[in-house]
Amino acid sequence: MSTATAVRFRDLLSQRASIGPAARLASGVQTPLYDFSGGRPDPAGYPYAALIEATARVMEAEGADALTYGDPLGYANLRDLVCQKYRLYEGLDVRRDNIIVANGSGHALSLAISTFVDVGDALICEAPTFGGTLNAIRRHGADILDVPVDDDGIDTGAVQRRLEALAREGRRCKLIYTQVNFHNPAGPTMSLRRRKRLIELAQAHETLILEDDAYGDLRFEGDPLPSLYALDDGACVIRAGTLSKILGPGVRLGWLCAPEPMIPFLQGFNFSGGVSPFASRIAVYFLRNHMTEHVAMLRDLYRSKRDAMLRGLAALVQETDATVSRPEGGFFLWLKLPAGTDCPKLAQLAEAASVRYVPGAVCYPNGGGDEYIRLAFSYEPAERCEAGAGLLAAAIRAARA
Amino acid sequence: MSTATAVRFRDLLSQRASIGPAARLASGVQTPLYDFSGGRPDPAGYPYAALIEATARVMEAEGADALTYGDPLGYANLRDLVCQKYRLYEGLDVRRDNIIVANGSGHALSLAISTFVDVGDALICEAPTFGGTLNAIRRHGADILDVPVDDDGIDTGAVQRRLEALAREGRRCKLIYTQVNFHNPAGPTMSLRRRKRLIELAQAHETLILEDDAYGDLRFEGDPLPSLYALDDGACVIRAGTLSKILGPGVRLGWLCAPEPMIPFLQGFNFSGGVSPFASRIAVYFLRNHMTEHVAMLRDLYRSKRDAMLRGLAALVQETDATVSRPEGGFFLWLKLPAGTDCPKLAQLAEAASVRYVPGAVCYPNGGGDEYIRLAFSYEPAERCEAGAGLLAAAIRAARA
Repeated sequence: MSTATAVRFRDLLSQRASIGPAARLASGVQTPLYDFSGGRPDPAGYPYAALIEATARVMEAEGADALTYGDPLGYANLRDLVCQKYRLYEGLDVRRDNIIVANGSGHALSLAISTFVDVGDALICEAPTFGGTLNAIRRHGADILDVPVDDDGIDTGAVQRRLEALAREGRRCKLIYTQVNFHNPAGPTMSLRRRKRLIELAQAHETLILEDDAYGDLRFEGDPLPSLYALDDGACVIRAGTLSKILGPGVRLGWLCAPEPMIPFLQGFNFSGGVSPFASRIAVYFLRNHMTEHVAMLRDLYRSKRDAMLRGLAALVQETDATVSRPEGGFFLWLKLPAGTDCPKLAQLAEAASVRYVPGAVCYPNGGGDEYIRLAFSYEPAERCEAGAGLLAAAIRAARA
Repeated sequence: MSTATAVRFRDLLSQRASIGPAARLASGVQTPLYDFSGGRPDPAGYPYAALIEATARVMEAEGADALTYGDPLGYANLRDLVCQKYRLYEGLDVRRDNIIVANGSGHALSLAISTFVDVGDALICEAPTFGGTLNAIRRHGADILDVPVDDDGIDTGAVQRRLEALAREGRRCKLIYTQVNFHNPAGPTMSLRRRKRLIELAQAHETLILEDDAYGDLRFEGDPLPSLYALDDGACVIRAGTLSKILGPGVRLGWLCAPEPMIPFLQGFNFSGGVSPFASRIAVYFLRNHMTEHVAMLRDLYRSKRDAMLRGLAALVQETDATVSRPEGGFFLWLKLPAGTDCPKLAQLAEAASVRYVPGAVCYPNGGGDEYIRLAFSYEPAERCEAGAGLLAAAIRAARA
């Protein structure tokens, strides 16, 4: 009886639960020697001792509040800290009431998708884009219309054609999902001209922009451009951010910054009890005293690792038709493989060399991308970024058909 | 332009976002002197110093793992601790692979609802029930069929009639949501006979049971009964639990225990990155050394507060036709007001006396419950539970029409 019933639950699944395969739960892959796959921060950059000290100060100052239910929108001082960070690094002026805290920016993005997207709704998305968000979008059953990315960011001409085609069909685009700084995986920072044009298009077609900026604080060089949210003056843009890259993903703290009238709708999909009153306070007690010096340290750390990995790839890029991005910040390189690379063979050779990367195809919503791979320089120490990239370059040369 | 666009986003809302009113974000009510409203633990029961110590041990032993992305199903040692707790307090034998960690049990319940409930689907629910879960169920747009609760728990005769009526309409019940121990708000613990009967009904009608047990560890007296999950042998029951009541809601750690084939479907609605690797480890490092003595301390603490509040209400119950529950555990009393109580007048008088409670009506899915109020004895110290209950009793006497 037990087994029979355990099978029957599939007949009861919701529409969204029936979309696509169930979640994969274990990779079963050994830890590689050179892990360039996920966007994991460098463990050397975590403030271990400072977080113990912050925990002690939190417990003394507001222990009872840290351990009970919190504000549905998130700890007020964390929302203030986000506003302060936006002012400091971007000149963006928003208020606590524009910020809703979520369990990491993946969860934050999901709140926006749940609020606006029903199964079958049209959503515009870059190709390539971040595979994690792509999974969340797919889970909602959106009809994903992809547009290319070039050196200036999202191709706004392609966005315009998508919006006009939808209008001719009598449909509306619910969201345009885009990354503005050091695009993951492709690398470019969206130009100011494109930023302004994208907002014009969204407003003209009465749709919304979901602006993802997980890495913006980790800028190695160049001046920051105004965010879409700042340029739009809070009318049609929802902006997502996270502490994962400047503090640590383990605290699971991200947020949306949105026009105030939207906040109650987004909050409707947040869980009750407030997001992480405990972790929020510890993060704030650390960052409010140490943010600028900590972020400056991380910028130096990741810049040196980007440069080390580029050194490891330099000969390959010089001697073949391979190309590689040189992002102004963030965690990733985007490598276009030499023409004629045998991708399955490369996968085997890379595994034999203990190098792990993300195949480009997982970043494409509707197929394509086999000629690319994404390399995270974030996790491994600089010397291993260079050495592993060298081993990978050798594997790539050996994998040419 | 900004204002016009800010209004138009309402046309873009998803079906679920359009259900009912947007979330309320602030009560605007002053802190009462006697807060008997929410199910908040007593701040005197939080292990402040032990959590600082646990944080230090976590950082030393596995700081890098605590601060990065975690296992999608949750920290393995937390899932093992849940299994250990189930064995210790309930004799329930499950494995790590049956447990999926969520951001509190409210989020855990939402994972199950998202996995099985589409807008318009039938779901059976007790009346009264926990208002927080009711909000989550409503957000999913379920057609809520209510059944009464009596001294033995859920009325299984009413469940049978609901299931048979659905069958005649050619519809299926997706979930039966029920609380088994010290029902919130009504108080009863479901009898063994009812537990067995409910499972028979669910299996016969090929539906699932969502068993909520947030308070089961806080049993003041009597022996625990086997959970629905244990009686069913993991075939049609999903069981939700939480650390909120034995450690603190601020860590936001809850879980589902479910048949293993269901886990990937439930996980599909969990966010990526793993739930709270940081808070999970701190909770585990504390509880694995201190759980039994800490839970024993909390049982004594809350038993004394239940008894204190009952003392404050004794004269009212003796001298009028008011009745009050005497739960074997948990956080709440359920008070049936004397016949003829003027509820709006009572609300005014209670506010004047600085006593806050939850009106019974918020616990009823489809109306009713005006003659009840829920009183949490969990938050205030024992002497204030007794004194505040006395003030409330006076207000009730004065509010009789």
